[in-house]
Amino acid sequence: MKEKSSMRVLSGIQPSGDLHIGNYFGAIEQFQKKQSGGDELFIFVADWHSLTTIKNPADLKKNIRQIVAAYIAFGLDAQKTTLYRQSDIPEIQEISWILSCQASMGRLQNAHSYKDKLDKGINATVGLFTYPILMAADILCVQADVVPVGKDQKQHLEICQEIAQKFNSTYGQTFTIPKGEIPDSVAVIPGTDGQKMSKSYANTIDIFAPDKKLKKQVNSIVTSPISVGDPIDTATCNILKLFKMFAMPEEIAEMETKYREGAIGFGDAKKILLDKIHAKFDLARKDFNRLMEDEREIDRVLAVGKEKAGAVVRKTLRTIREKVGL
Amino acid sequence: MKEKSSMRVLSGIQPSGDLHIGNYFGAIEQFQKKQSGGDELFIFVADWHSLTTIKNPADLKKNIRQIVAAYIAFGLDAQKTTLYRQSDIPEIQEISWILSCQASMGRLQNAHSYKDKLDKGINATVGLFTYPILMAADILCVQADVVPVGKDQKQHLEICQEIAQKFNSTYGQTFTIPKGEIPDSVAVIPGTDGQKMSKSYANTIDIFAPDKKLKKQVNSIVTSPISVGDPIDTATCNILKLFKMFAMPEEIAEMETKYREGAIGFGDAKKILLDKIHAKFDLARKDFNRLMEDEREIDRVLAVGKEKAGAVVRKTLRTIREKVGL
Repeated sequence: MKEKSSMRVLSGIQPSGDLHIGNYFGAIEQFQKKQSGGDELFIFVADWHSLTTIKNPADLKKNIRQIVAAYIAFGLDAQKTTLYRQSDIPEIQEISWILSCQASMGRLQNAHSYKDKLDKGINATVGLFTYPILMAADILCVQADVVPVGKDQKQHLEICQEIAQKFNSTYGQTFTIPKGEIPDSVAVIPGTDGQKMSKSYANTIDIFAPDKKLKKQVNSIVTSPISVGDPIDTATCNILKLFKMFAMPEEIAEMETKYREGAIGFGDAKKILLDKIHAKFDLARKDFNRLMEDEREIDRVLAVGKEKAGAVVRKTLRTIREKVGL
Repeated sequence: MKEKSSMRVLSGIQPSGDLHIGNYFGAIEQFQKKQSGGDELFIFVADWHSLTTIKNPADLKKNIRQIVAAYIAFGLDAQKTTLYRQSDIPEIQEISWILSCQASMGRLQNAHSYKDKLDKGINATVGLFTYPILMAADILCVQADVVPVGKDQKQHLEICQEIAQKFNSTYGQTFTIPKGEIPDSVAVIPGTDGQKMSKSYANTIDIFAPDKKLKKQVNSIVTSPISVGDPIDTATCNILKLFKMFAMPEEIAEMETKYREGAIGFGDAKKILLDKIHAKFDLARKDFNRLMEDEREIDRVLAVGKEKAGAVVRKTLRTIREKVGL
């Protein structure tokens, strides 16, 4: 076992459209914490993976630019973090093929994420099925120590670990076996309709939406009908749940008191929430807009990432090519 | 439909060990005919595919060198034929991924070649399963017009055609739909035991074996016990079957007469066959040995192939990346 003061952490992000508040607390905040904790981060835009679901080229292109702009806007530190497009490192696909010759079909056939996706009506393509192999290549090609995984990705990480072990035992020690890391328990962020915030429920509050649209989304938060001056249930109010993500403990206590005393209505609560959202995100929003207007910085960051990640991946590929006899 | 005087023909060769007489008449002779017929040939060493079965790196390396040396020795014309290693063109793997996002799982699950391989005891790896996708990428990446296919590859070519059609209909006309070509009916070449000549039956006569081994292999041809001077059945004799592959019609007639008259024994027939084999292959054998002793020419040919095929493949990749939005 190697001892490292700094861990290499790998994380992939899907360019799946406008970033919402749920994405922030579920992923980007984690990334900020890791970065300031001194870890070495490899974050990649999983654009090849997106091809399993996105069939519109214009959407894909726009989404890729947006997600990169968002990460830069949220404080990417180029010294600690390598941000790159998966498709900028073609060697990953060759590694994926080599790994696929080690990976057991049975394991993949039993992967529940594939079945879940079919249940959701996504086309049963070969790419959708072999997705975990490409994910294993993404992880192993940079010899990541740690991979933060949500519940739905846990099994994929296990598949990755097995493939790495199989390769190591066939060809001799080659790959770091990555550890999964379940992120600090994150509260489920409710969407405007009270369900979990998700693009697929069309209930998002989008971080980089123009002011008017953002206000409209906040105003669309569903509340229970209540008469002015009546107390509001603090346990079920969606506005309050969202407010708690942004406010300090004393602010939350104050708001809850007002709720119980009937001293505030939903309209005012929404205004306060909107202010909080602006306070938290306006710097990043400004940066994001600047980046999207002049994309040269996006290009520059991606070029640096391509070079840094590419060097690491090429080293891995050289090693495994030698081992398999290519 | 485009009209072409010269067709682009693609053919992959497995680096599966010593070339035998069956390989010559089944594949290499076809390649020689095509080349002198004026077609543009792309011939690649399918080394990535081999990883589904070859797990010994030293074997794989040696096999790759040998197959390239053999093709050069058999008269590769660098003006008409591009000979390259599959793994020298990393872009093929990215094309394979993009195609996999178009390919239907159901089609692959019903591919009989995969099932046949499992029946033969080959490990059920993901690579073995997705092999037809990589094969489709091999074909489509060079926009081949024609692919010679044996019976066992016919279904894989159909899968390739379907993927190309699916891509063209999703993203607009992109790929040439390749035509399959069943090679001129080739007589089944018997091995030394009378079964079809095949490495897996250990009944081969190896074209590039040293003189002594070649003689030993020819002498090991199984014959029916018979007394000296007795007539020999011309329909069942394995020596005669092989002799027919090498001899002129009048020589065959003469030999058959001797058989029927009991004017020749098996020992002499084997000597005559061995002479024929030498007469046919000695030039190539000499060249092969020279190439294997000084591998610089092999490297040079592969470098030219890498450049020529690489340029074609990169052009294809640029087009499809643009179409899918990468």
